[in-house]
Amino acid sequence: MIIWVTGANGFIGRHLVRVLADRGNRVHGIGHGAIGEAERHRIGLEHWLNGEIDAANLNALAERAGLPSTIFHLAGGSSVGLSIAQPFEDFSRTVTSTARLLEWLRGAARDCRVIVASSAAVYGAGHAGAIAVDAATLPMSPYGQHKLIMEQLCRSYAVTFGLQSTVARLFSIYGPNLRKQLPWDICSRLQAGDRRLVLGGTGAEVRDWTDVRDVARLLTAIDGKPQSEAFQVINAGSGLGTTVARVAARIAECWGGTISVQFSGIVRAGDPTSLLSDDAMPRTLPFDWKIQVEQGLADYVSWFKDQIR
Amino acid sequence: MIIWVTGANGFIGRHLVRVLADRGNRVHGIGHGAIGEAERHRIGLEHWLNGEIDAANLNALAERAGLPSTIFHLAGGSSVGLSIAQPFEDFSRTVTSTARLLEWLRGAARDCRVIVASSAAVYGAGHAGAIAVDAATLPMSPYGQHKLIMEQLCRSYAVTFGLQSTVARLFSIYGPNLRKQLPWDICSRLQAGDRRLVLGGTGAEVRDWTDVRDVARLLTAIDGKPQSEAFQVINAGSGLGTTVARVAARIAECWGGTISVQFSGIVRAGDPTSLLSDDAMPRTLPFDWKIQVEQGLADYVSWFKDQIR
Repeated sequence: MIIWVTGANGFIGRHLVRVLADRGNRVHGIGHGAIGEAERHRIGLEHWLNGEIDAANLNALAERAGLPSTIFHLAGGSSVGLSIAQPFEDFSRTVTSTARLLEWLRGAARDCRVIVASSAAVYGAGHAGAIAVDAATLPMSPYGQHKLIMEQLCRSYAVTFGLQSTVARLFSIYGPNLRKQLPWDICSRLQAGDRRLVLGGTGAEVRDWTDVRDVARLLTAIDGKPQSEAFQVINAGSGLGTTVARVAARIAECWGGTISVQFSGIVRAGDPTSLLSDDAMPRTLPFDWKIQVEQGLADYVSWFKDQIR
Repeated sequence: MIIWVTGANGFIGRHLVRVLADRGNRVHGIGHGAIGEAERHRIGLEHWLNGEIDAANLNALAERAGLPSTIFHLAGGSSVGLSIAQPFEDFSRTVTSTARLLEWLRGAARDCRVIVASSAAVYGAGHAGAIAVDAATLPMSPYGQHKLIMEQLCRSYAVTFGLQSTVARLFSIYGPNLRKQLPWDICSRLQAGDRRLVLGGTGAEVRDWTDVRDVARLLTAIDGKPQSEAFQVINAGSGLGTTVARVAARIAECWGGTISVQFSGIVRAGDPTSLLSDDAMPRTLPFDWKIQVEQGLADYVSWFKDQIR
């Protein structure tokens, strides 16, 4: 199958491309960032177009790579903090790119299926416990709002033009190659010799931590099952919640030595206290989460220590 | 007060500018369309910038007109049919222009209040009877979807940056200067000598018809009442439903002569069977609808006959 991945150069994108290529697909990508020839082969990308998602570039990729049967749309904003600092930039990356992609598909590849990486941030605050996929969506940040708008554009093209799309709301993804967010920040400080960590928030924040290697498998599993409706939304979390305090403690444990962790109590803007998936959909795919968070974090610490050598 | 109106050259915009100017405000506009000097004076516009809503043009208008205390944001797509024919164009007009406006306000005029013209099309189909403002929003067309996205961008800038906005969901607006939609179509056919009208749909479609002169007053009444929350949504309908069949009959009656009206039974894409406001909010402003639909349609027919002389 010819498969395209937008944002293939990103954290999730690189893992996903590898899984897709290993299964015998011809995988092509578009998005930002230079990828050298050797690196492109290593990742598993046949063609890579470094540029904006717009009609001209999509036409150019189609010319070289052929039209896709599935597009995984991972391009978009990737930081709550940046979306607050530069909301229009986040809007352009997430919303405008999606509008252009859908419009191009409407004209050029109407039978192509779109699998879209959205975020649990669309739910916003006020959800205690597991969140069902039809729960209220009240995003707390431009990041979450723009992801929700992206979903609605997909819904609109499904309703009016029959373009098939599946939205996967991703939860807290970590794993090898993640170079930002909590696990990265903790490892970076430990690497710098800090042994008395003070982290933001209370530590009691609950997140549904999922290893990126599982998430890449989940996304391909979604592609493996035909859509029952033109537009569908999936909660792509494990259903298991772990506090930030526990994650920090586990990373410290895997790192080794005497490390103390404290929390400032200062909650970051746009940061809900709990984001936990109900895990109703992945079980119907079928799909099994394989990497428990305790093991995943141990792997992450190993990866971190390897890559800084 | 310095007030700006985006889309001031449109059907609602021209009526609104007149009301605002008559109340002693200094009114400036930005949007598409050439307006001659004499016409600009007649409407009540002090400055008019004919162009896109983007940072450069907004800066240019601020230079000439001074920063506004309120912006009425009326610019955007205005046709369900066109939004299906050219969805990306409708997206750009409604969504991108709003994103640019809000981002500019965040930097240049954070205390400016925004009053936004949205549409009952955000509700979509499946609402029997009066629709409450917190009813489910499931738009049936790109037009309605893009209006909903526009609202969400306003909400996002209110939640994250404290930018104050009020969304007015407008229902079926008709009145002097309307040169499209049902009343215009019927009058145009009658003018052409057609006496056996066949209209689309069933005739049983219920709409909340509001006269544009009332709507212009309602929008100014919204501006007259301080916001209780940073983001609020108002159902800007009368709460009185009239069928398309009755509207057609009333227009025929006012036109005079022997006219028969039939319906094809063919429902147009993106067209819900009922869109009726619950009218809960306008009564709290305070605001009274003054022009009943029977009178408003009589006025419309008079206006139509006058303008073709």
